[in-house]
Amino acid sequence: MASRDREQSKCCFKEWMELQEQDLSELLQALKLDPQNKDRLKHLAEKGICHFQDYINKRTQLARRDVSAFFAPTWCTSWENSLLWISGCRPSLFFRLVYVLGGSKMESKLSEFLQDTREGSLGEVLTCSQLVVVNSLQSKTIREEERLTGELAALQEDIADQPIAMIAKGLSQLGEMNREVEEALDEHGQAMVRILEEADQLRLNTVKELVNILTPLQAVDFLVASKKLHLCVHKWGRNRDQKLGRENLED
Amino acid sequence: MASRDREQSKCCFKEWMELQEQDLSELLQALKLDPQNKDRLKHLAEKGICHFQDYINKRTQLARRDVSAFFAPTWCTSWENSLLWISGCRPSLFFRLVYVLGGSKMESKLSEFLQDTREGSLGEVLTCSQLVVVNSLQSKTIREEERLTGELAALQEDIADQPIAMIAKGLSQLGEMNREVEEALDEHGQAMVRILEEADQLRLNTVKELVNILTPLQAVDFLVASKKLHLCVHKWGRNRDQKLGRENLED
Repeated sequence: MASRDREQSKCCFKEWMELQEQDLSELLQALKLDPQNKDRLKHLAEKGICHFQDYINKRTQLARRDVSAFFAPTWCTSWENSLLWISGCRPSLFFRLVYVLGGSKMESKLSEFLQDTREGSLGEVLTCSQLVVVNSLQSKTIREEERLTGELAALQEDIADQPIAMIAKGLSQLGEMNREVEEALDEHGQAMVRILEEADQLRLNTVKELVNILTPLQAVDFLVASKKLHLCVHKWGRNRDQKLGRENLED
Repeated sequence: MASRDREQSKCCFKEWMELQEQDLSELLQALKLDPQNKDRLKHLAEKGICHFQDYINKRTQLARRDVSAFFAPTWCTSWENSLLWISGCRPSLFFRLVYVLGGSKMESKLSEFLQDTREGSLGEVLTCSQLVVVNSLQSKTIREEERLTGELAALQEDIADQPIAMIAKGLSQLGEMNREVEEALDEHGQAMVRILEEADQLRLNTVKELVNILTPLQAVDFLVASKKLHLCVHKWGRNRDQKLGRENLED
């Protein structure tokens, strides 16, 4: 039996995935129907960011009640969980996506030029000045990511320090619970919540700043790729588990 | 229904935890009955390391068939999983444990001196020359830990790069599986196995080298604390989940 908290956390995630599917359809439709309508694209990109902000706010509330559930969610597949960095994707991943999209755009522009066909990319190649700003944001983001990685490492090592390790060593009955244990674990949990909040904020700010640097068309292209990737990772993990008879997931 | 592979992986872990409980009893008994019997203590420390080596060998075989199961095991509590670094504890954690044990020994030696009582610690205070060697091993281990952390980060970012992100972007039906997807995911999985193997080797070597630096009595004291901590973390997570009605674990 899952607790009410875990049930709510699972619902919160499921709603977020469904909302991302809806947002993705809207983005794809806008690209198809009128890719020159900058105001419409801009509005949709902002709407996507608002939804991300809402999701983060909701899960922060839930994490305050049960933070460890978010570090290896039982509602995700093991494969998804093996890709997690502090309960979500690495912020540096957004840059890899921007570069690979830019790269594929450049390649398709080149083939367009060489073959003189009109098909190809919807977005535009990143300009040099955009690349400079993206690159500087990337450096700043990686520094923050490394800082948080270090903080998580320190918190994980704290388990082997005072008071936790010494409480464990002093217990005559292994795993016994008492007020001292509860207090030490509660304090550790609170520190985990703070790291999760900072990591979520870094993910959100990275997406926000990238969307500001990109043109509306590029921003929508980036959001489409990032949502498709997230949804695919979720579904691929599930498909492979089903194929191999590994259906441990709660549906 | 869990697959045969996952069932075997879970058994492998359960057997390892049971073996650790047995080893712990033996170590505690040896400390109680004859803490001066260096040969006996040395033999038990070596036996503990052999068991660790066996466990690692077994799980490497299992990981080659289903690696992601080990990155967020469904047979552990969320709290345990939130403490994982590449499917196990951080090797740097062993040093924190040695220092905190050394520290508590020094404190108890001091109180022994001040109060002139004969009770107190079983182990001996680390000597200066031991501290120098432990410290140099710690630096080497942390460098390796950082290298592997970086490799895992790169592998997690690869998801947003060619070919995976571009396959996801190109799919008209979200999460669709085809040969291209399977191949990309298989290749990613193989790289995850290599990182897991290196991390396990680093954990094993760290324990081996520490035991070599410590006296038999100190080594047994360290192994007792590390096993107690591991077993407590497993049981505390379970106790807290049970208390809060979060019993998602397969028993």
